[in-house]
Amino acid sequence: MTLSVEPLTGLPLFHPGDNLAAALAGALRRLAAPPADGDILVVCQKVVSKVEGRYVDLRAVEPSALARRIAAETADKDPRAVEVVLRESNRIVRMKSGHLIVETGPGWVCANAGIDASNTGSPDRLLLLPLDPDASAARLAEQLSRDFGIALAVIISDTWGRPWRVGLVDFAIGVAGMSPLRDHRGEHDLDGRELQHTIIASADALAAAAGLVMGKSAAVPAALVRGYSAPPGGGSGRDLLRDPETDLFR
Amino acid sequence: MTLSVEPLTGLPLFHPGDNLAAALAGALRRLAAPPADGDILVVCQKVVSKVEGRYVDLRAVEPSALARRIAAETADKDPRAVEVVLRESNRIVRMKSGHLIVETGPGWVCANAGIDASNTGSPDRLLLLPLDPDASAARLAEQLSRDFGIALAVIISDTWGRPWRVGLVDFAIGVAGMSPLRDHRGEHDLDGRELQHTIIASADALAAAAGLVMGKSAAVPAALVRGYSAPPGGGSGRDLLRDPETDLFR
Repeated sequence: MTLSVEPLTGLPLFHPGDNLAAALAGALRRLAAPPADGDILVVCQKVVSKVEGRYVDLRAVEPSALARRIAAETADKDPRAVEVVLRESNRIVRMKSGHLIVETGPGWVCANAGIDASNTGSPDRLLLLPLDPDASAARLAEQLSRDFGIALAVIISDTWGRPWRVGLVDFAIGVAGMSPLRDHRGEHDLDGRELQHTIIASADALAAAAGLVMGKSAAVPAALVRGYSAPPGGGSGRDLLRDPETDLFR
Repeated sequence: MTLSVEPLTGLPLFHPGDNLAAALAGALRRLAAPPADGDILVVCQKVVSKVEGRYVDLRAVEPSALARRIAAETADKDPRAVEVVLRESNRIVRMKSGHLIVETGPGWVCANAGIDASNTGSPDRLLLLPLDPDASAARLAEQLSRDFGIALAVIISDTWGRPWRVGLVDFAIGVAGMSPLRDHRGEHDLDGRELQHTIIASADALAAAAGLVMGKSAAVPAALVRGYSAPPGGGSGRDLLRDPETDLFR
């Protein structure tokens, strides 16, 4: 079946307390065809964080000695911003040449704890990841499913770098209404050989696909995926996190 | 613009020497609309490797002492298969609990050097990655662009695991007719702040999107992406590889 990924356009800039679900519903109504059962809405974390008021005012942040030392290693780091990253981190995975890859409270491993300095409305403001992206996804899924009388899945995405490879792609951090993983273990290949290690990170691939129409400087913070039969059942963005004990790279 | 990802169906099982371009052209002609200028064909490496005869017969492989020692660490490893992985590797990135993450000759970092044991037609046969996936992509792009009188881009993809995250997604290893990266540096965000670290791995995101319609056990080895304005210019799958000197995870 052909899969389609439609950008949701005409959305405003969002501010704390704005009704994101209502704005997304409006954008969905402007599509040529309404969303249907099983469609998947991918929403970038930035607008979720904004309506949830996840801002930090750098003017109120006192950097620790460690934050000052890390910032001093490179020319373009603000020690207060480093301090905010450290506060959001469970563990520092790599710290070198001005790069700070950390494991955040919920377990995401990404640069600078996923904290965003662009499009925040002020040079003194940083934007943290949503506190509970699964809950954010569930609220949107519930409201929009009710509005349209369908079962809509929602993925909250963020844009991250990867080890070994150049460039950013979008990943899923919050998931509602679908399982983020498709498990092919126990199925057989064309030779009848059992597939052994084949669990597909469907939600990450959906986030990456949505990222293709969202762009970085344009104001397209969401996209609707149609024609993909998502893995059924519930699930959490945390299902995509490897157990740190068995992760070879933490 | 809405992006679409169409599976190419009705393709046969491939064997060494088969004309893959002709078979893909046939499948493209069966689509409801013919491919157009700027469309992107994603082809999984397995069929490319098959027509290029990249098989290794395990019965002819004599494992080294190192391969035997690595295989002995886990119950389900064949020392001859480990030997083939070592022969394809420049460097062992991680070796633990039966997992072997290596840097291959061309520089891909992946488990087991990307060598495939499923769908190879025999338990004694392994399938290596294409020798030069860019060249494979270029041959397909040239032939199919000529057949349809268009400029078609081609990505050769493979399905890999990732550090920190559960599950596999598809990545680009060969690219022709487009740049694999979209560079937003120098552009400005909605506040007028310059985007500093924003290079998007478009080809990886396109491979991930195509993976959503290709499936693992089904015989859908290619997909056509329409409606994506690919970064212009040429490029190589190797553009997606971080310089090992600046890679924090090698």
